[in-house]
Amino acid sequence: MATVKLLSDADASPAARAVFDDIRATRNTDYINNAWRALANDPVALKRTWGKAKDVMAPGALDVLTKELIYLTVSIMNSCDYCIHSHTAFARAKGMTQEQHNELLRVIGLATELNRTMTAMAVPVDERFQAR
Amino acid sequence: MATVKLLSDADASPAARAVFDDIRATRNTDYINNAWRALANDPVALKRTWGKAKDVMAPGALDVLTKELIYLTVSIMNSCDYCIHSHTAFARAKGMTQEQHNELLRVIGLATELNRTMTAMAVPVDERFQAR
Amino acid sequence: MATVKLLSDADASPAARAVFDDIRATRNTDYINNAWRALANDPVALKRTWGKAKDVMAPGALDVLTKELIYLTVSIMNSCDYCIHSHTAFARAKGMTQEQHNELLRVIGLATELNRTMTAMAVPVDERFQAR
Amino acid sequence: MATVKLLSDADASPAARAVFDDIRATRNTDYINNAWRALANDPVALKRTWGKAKDVMAPGALDVLTKELIYLTVSIMNSCDYCIHSHTAFARAKGMTQEQHNELLRVIGLATELNRTMTAMAVPVDERFQAR
Amino acid sequence: MATVKLLSDADASPAARAVFDDIRATRNTDYINNAWRALANDPVALKRTWGKAKDVMAPGALDVLTKELIYLTVSIMNSCDYCIHSHTAFARAKGMTQEQHNELLRVIGLATELNRTMTAMAVPVDERFQAR
Amino acid sequence: MATVKLLSDADASPAARAVFDDIRATRNTDYINNAWRALANDPVALKRTWGKAKDVMAPGALDVLTKELIYLTVSIMNSCDYCIHSHTAFARAKGMTQEQHNELLRVIGLATELNRTMTAMAVPVDERFQAR
Repeated sequence: MATVKLLSDADASPAARAVFDDIRATRNTDYINNAWRALANDPVALKRTWGKAKDVMAPGALDVLTKELIYLTVSIMNSCDYCIHSHTAFARAKGMTQEQHNELLRVIGLATELNRTMTAMAVPVDERFQAR
Repeated sequence: MATVKLLSDADASPAARAVFDDIRATRNTDYINNAWRALANDPVALKRTWGKAKDVMAPGALDVLTKELIYLTVSIMNSCDYCIHSHTAFARAKGMTQEQHNELLRVIGLATELNRTMTAMAVPVDERFQAR
Repeated sequence: MATVKLLSDADASPAARAVFDDIRATRNTDYINNAWRALANDPVALKRTWGKAKDVMAPGALDVLTKELIYLTVSIMNSCDYCIHSHTAFARAKGMTQEQHNELLRVIGLATELNRTMTAMAVPVDERFQAR
Repeated sequence: MATVKLLSDADASPAARAVFDDIRATRNTDYINNAWRALANDPVALKRTWGKAKDVMAPGALDVLTKELIYLTVSIMNSCDYCIHSHTAFARAKGMTQEQHNELLRVIGLATELNRTMTAMAVPVDERFQAR
Repeated sequence: MATVKLLSDADASPAARAVFDDIRATRNTDYINNAWRALANDPVALKRTWGKAKDVMAPGALDVLTKELIYLTVSIMNSCDYCIHSHTAFARAKGMTQEQHNELLRVIGLATELNRTMTAMAVPVDERFQAR
Repeated sequence: MATVKLLSDADASPAARAVFDDIRATRNTDYINNAWRALANDPVALKRTWGKAKDVMAPGALDVLTKELIYLTVSIMNSCDYCIHSHTAFARAKGMTQEQHNELLRVIGLATELNRTMTAMAVPVDERFQAR
């Protein structure tokens, strides 16, 4: 099920198709995944989102795989089923090994358990953790 | 404010003090931060948590800074104020630069925005994102 | 799948069927959607919920469509798949256009991105935002 | 407390100060609230965020107050204390009455209660709520 | 800080004062905690909420302490600082021991860790967990 | 769909199969549910998780059914579909009646509604709710 139509190339507006073309060229594949076909219902958001995604996920002070792992972590915390599937696949395509996936899930498990415990105890922040 | 007492060394049980000693030896500091003084109300959980934290956060298939960034990401997604302060400080102590912090927040921002959009549109998962 | 049985008219208790009848009369339709058939397992909660929903969603200081958009926003933030589908449909039935849906998702995207950034930075509240 | 420094005009980079100037001109006030002084640690994100906020929150298919109410709803669902304070104040500045605030909170309360009940019952989506 | 005024008895409307009186009589105390003074800005919601709280939290198929522990668990998962403080105090007043508090937090920690792992792995529901 | 393979007994490592054997002996059933077959991709985490689950969920200061209800509450708040299905079934197997399930959902509904209202109003914590 979906709450919006997934737009085929024929149904998409020219502005949306131009983004599809750039996705194809950038990723060197003909396949457009469902995320973009859904976003095509709002060509303005589609173009802005794709441009921002290319920019933010590019290698910089953090490498590409680290960025994917952070993206995947956010998706898990938001319980976004589509995003978990697609970004687990993307992380693997960028080199994530089974052991790295295991360690990622162990860190997430530890952190979320301790987060809830600290929140439940309303622990006051130590002065030394203040910025500067 | 807090919902449990922060236990001083004098108030903590012998089992809890033994964990405090190990924290001091492992981190090479005399300072015990509030998280452990709160957890000391449950010495069983304190010991298990400290042991697990040492194990899970040790360098492995993922390096120590990457693990800290993932821990920090979870803390931000859980809105855990104590955890955000402490793990931002820990990440800096492990070498996180201002530019890396900036990029971390940009990835989190992009991911959470797209997560909510995908969830709102209930986009079905592409067959190719299935494991194997 | 479901964790409770969806009760048909025949399986529902007389108290639950009375609510079904009021839903049919109020909405001028014979169709009872799955939400109410699931809630019928607790006739007390079913009656209270339906009464409250009619009251809270009625036009008042906020118009009916604005209330639906707020309801839908909450459902998206809670990742409630059933609620997202039903209230997207309800919002359309109350006049939501494609462009309004697009703008709704853009505002949600912006807000959730900035929310996480503010939380990550633990920005202190300006004195002037205090009530009165 | 905060995890980043709030940058004064003197401490901010020229790129950040240029955004401060545009905020002052757009809002017709000399006051820069803490959100922007924190974001100034990442001038690239500051500029992009401010530009996007101006664009997304401008009147369009949804009016300005409706957009503020949706932004505030997201902030409440994300438990973002800073965002709740600032956007409650912004909504009031854009005309939100006490009665509208009351109704907003009643809709949020109803929706989140029913969201959790539907999720707990894992109610399957009715075929008629599918897009198209 | 707060986003609404906390209403004193003098500032509250007669309808709100009547609820204050019932709270005082029911709880056998003169003290009205801040939650109700904030809710008094919407006397309709105040009355409905107080009535519902009395009804839902009364002993039934679940005893009073179990209900408090569930309420506290929800508050921890929602990161509601006010609610965590007040309902930890309420649970203690209803007999929660330190060891019960410890076990509560251990179960929450285990559950949230495993929840995130299951979500990350997108584990399909076993047929036998279907209702009936 | 899933993001990891569900490991059969044949595909699982000897370490994972040893945990499967202990699950079978402890629960007195031959059936291994999907959660453990997914976790078997990380035999270290599988062993630690199973050991911790047995320990934390054992009767103690809180009885077994109360622990299940708390686990289920966390799962509902995290929108973990797998966990909601499995732990609703587990709670029923441990004696949860329909009326207890109804009351559980009523308490969760009340709590989450009031949580969001308190968060929206940013109600300050009463001094008397401070620990000690």
